[in-house]
Amino acid sequence: MQVRAAVAYQAGAPLSIETVELEGPRAGEVLVEIKATGVCHTDLYTLSGADPEGLFPTILGHEGAGIVVDVGPGVTSLKKGDHVIPLYTPECRECEYCLNPKTNLCQAIRSTQGQGLMPDGSSRFSLGGKKLHHYMGTSTFAQYTVVPEIALAKIREDAPFDKVCYIGCGVTTGIGAVIYTAKVEPGAKVVVFGLGGIGLNVIQGARLAGAGMIVGVDLNPARKAMAEKFGMTHFVNPAEVEGDLVPYLVNLTKGGADYSFECIGNTKVMRQALECCHKGWGTSIIIGVAEAGAEISTRPFQLVTGRNWRGSAFGGARGRTDVPKIVDWYMEGKIDIDSLITHTMPLEKINEAFDLMHRGESIRSVVIY
Amino acid sequence: MQVRAAVAYQAGAPLSIETVELEGPRAGEVLVEIKATGVCHTDLYTLSGADPEGLFPTILGHEGAGIVVDVGPGVTSLKKGDHVIPLYTPECRECEYCLNPKTNLCQAIRSTQGQGLMPDGSSRFSLGGKKLHHYMGTSTFAQYTVVPEIALAKIREDAPFDKVCYIGCGVTTGIGAVIYTAKVEPGAKVVVFGLGGIGLNVIQGARLAGAGMIVGVDLNPARKAMAEKFGMTHFVNPAEVEGDLVPYLVNLTKGGADYSFECIGNTKVMRQALECCHKGWGTSIIIGVAEAGAEISTRPFQLVTGRNWRGSAFGGARGRTDVPKIVDWYMEGKIDIDSLITHTMPLEKINEAFDLMHRGESIRSVVIY
Repeated sequence: MQVRAAVAYQAGAPLSIETVELEGPRAGEVLVEIKATGVCHTDLYTLSGADPEGLFPTILGHEGAGIVVDVGPGVTSLKKGDHVIPLYTPECRECEYCLNPKTNLCQAIRSTQGQGLMPDGSSRFSLGGKKLHHYMGTSTFAQYTVVPEIALAKIREDAPFDKVCYIGCGVTTGIGAVIYTAKVEPGAKVVVFGLGGIGLNVIQGARLAGAGMIVGVDLNPARKAMAEKFGMTHFVNPAEVEGDLVPYLVNLTKGGADYSFECIGNTKVMRQALECCHKGWGTSIIIGVAEAGAEISTRPFQLVTGRNWRGSAFGGARGRTDVPKIVDWYMEGKIDIDSLITHTMPLEKINEAFDLMHRGESIRSVVIY
Repeated sequence: MQVRAAVAYQAGAPLSIETVELEGPRAGEVLVEIKATGVCHTDLYTLSGADPEGLFPTILGHEGAGIVVDVGPGVTSLKKGDHVIPLYTPECRECEYCLNPKTNLCQAIRSTQGQGLMPDGSSRFSLGGKKLHHYMGTSTFAQYTVVPEIALAKIREDAPFDKVCYIGCGVTTGIGAVIYTAKVEPGAKVVVFGLGGIGLNVIQGARLAGAGMIVGVDLNPARKAMAEKFGMTHFVNPAEVEGDLVPYLVNLTKGGADYSFECIGNTKVMRQALECCHKGWGTSIIIGVAEAGAEISTRPFQLVTGRNWRGSAFGGARGRTDVPKIVDWYMEGKIDIDSLITHTMPLEKINEAFDLMHRGESIRSVVIY
């Protein structure tokens, strides 16, 4: 079929709106009409050329929501008309990872997904007879896309696509890191480094978990108001702290953070996030993606005296199980997504979303088809 | 009272056997006749002068066992004749740390202990009218010592002092890291770096926990036989591995260690220990003490993809609660201590224990009074 899509021909160039060819779903695959998609920093990262695993030409996009249009042979959990969110971290419920309660990193289709292909090793997208790569198994910058059944979360039908698409990445990454990875307890003291989209979602996750103190750290004072709206109780601007930031935060939290979250991708901040944790039990979770080759470091004494250094991908969430729950939380008013979606646009203006991110002027832009 | 003791006058010099003056126990304190004490690398470390917190003159020793001789006012949990093991990590059961199930690092007397003093800020030891420092709150290189009540584990009376003294540090540090810190599950794959006393105790802790695969890593092939006796299932000599050690271990364990333990104190090995862990859930525990100022490092991707970096001090054990249990395990034949005690000697020959350690010729030397 003919599908309108934003094609990334090469790194560093703007996306190009084209009519591409999309093959129908094969065994275990599902054809989805994408109704809305967020534009995320990970798309920007790959498009910039900095992602060493980036493949071109491709159709980017991994934060979508839509409706099932057709299913391939053997698909049993979804049918035409179901509302779905594509999952770049699938949930096969059969692999060694899915069967281990400690992880969400399903590996069932990892190798083909990393090669920009469907699980059978081929692509459904082409343009002028030339293959286009899939991206993160989702390719939501196309009005229709084909996704493996195990990479689709079925969601309630009254949820608005242009809001819950954000649950496909940023919302779940932030809230999930609190709920599923860290398992923050009521009353806990939480420190969040970086108050962009992920950090704001960490903050509302911490509020949802009943955290007693939620400290936000950001160099940009303009982010304070929104973070407070999301549940931040204390704001710290490192530029205004006299002396070192770590002892300041330890003092502010009366001994250190029970949980800290790095939402920037800066390895120096990752160290601060660990070291501001409470002796004996503080856990620091790395969410941000650092530049290729960058390393974190600390003195081992920090760990021997009881701090834990961990990371979180897709918020530790199992997509088919947990994403529908997060959609429910949104529909029940427990979390706010609307305030985070600062811009919407049609597919034809998708490059504006990248420009807004470059300039730091958006929290989240959403393309509505 | 007059007490025979090994005095450390200054860093780098041998211990000197002296008759020192010991004051009786004050409120909350207990006078203990030490019947046996292990000589540990931590004593060597402090005596060498490398320990930045080392204080002289002092009476070293922190791995003892003995009998209560007298109690000061207010002591309720111990009486004359009780058999005890002194605890350099106390357990007050009242502080913020003791009340948090995630840590064993009781802070009740931390600051005075670090200053080489009893909790009231004074010392019970003197020589020729000059104060001697306590060491780690225990000072077991003296035939009698005074210890706070909260720093004594009461143990069964049929346990031999010259064996269970080792539970005061090395045994608990190794076995506890497996049982209390890592909480290794039956069937788990475990990799242990360094097959000295701590590593051997980690191995028998892993066997006790029912680990399915226990890999020992050491450059010294002479350590293989003893490690196998303690439960090691696979031996790896890094000098005999072609290529990098980490992928070799990941391959050997079919995906990586569920748990790894660093028992050396080498920051490069700490990195290997983390990176040989299984994606998604592998946990690496640092036990070894690195040289002052040394730092660990890795790429944050290692954590974001699910590995956990942690540490363990005194095996995560709460001394008054857990040390008596470990004594029971020894008396029930569940763990082996006898094979680890390679040398015994009277106090007068304690410097030989340090020489043996220097030359790497002992696992554990025990001084018997």
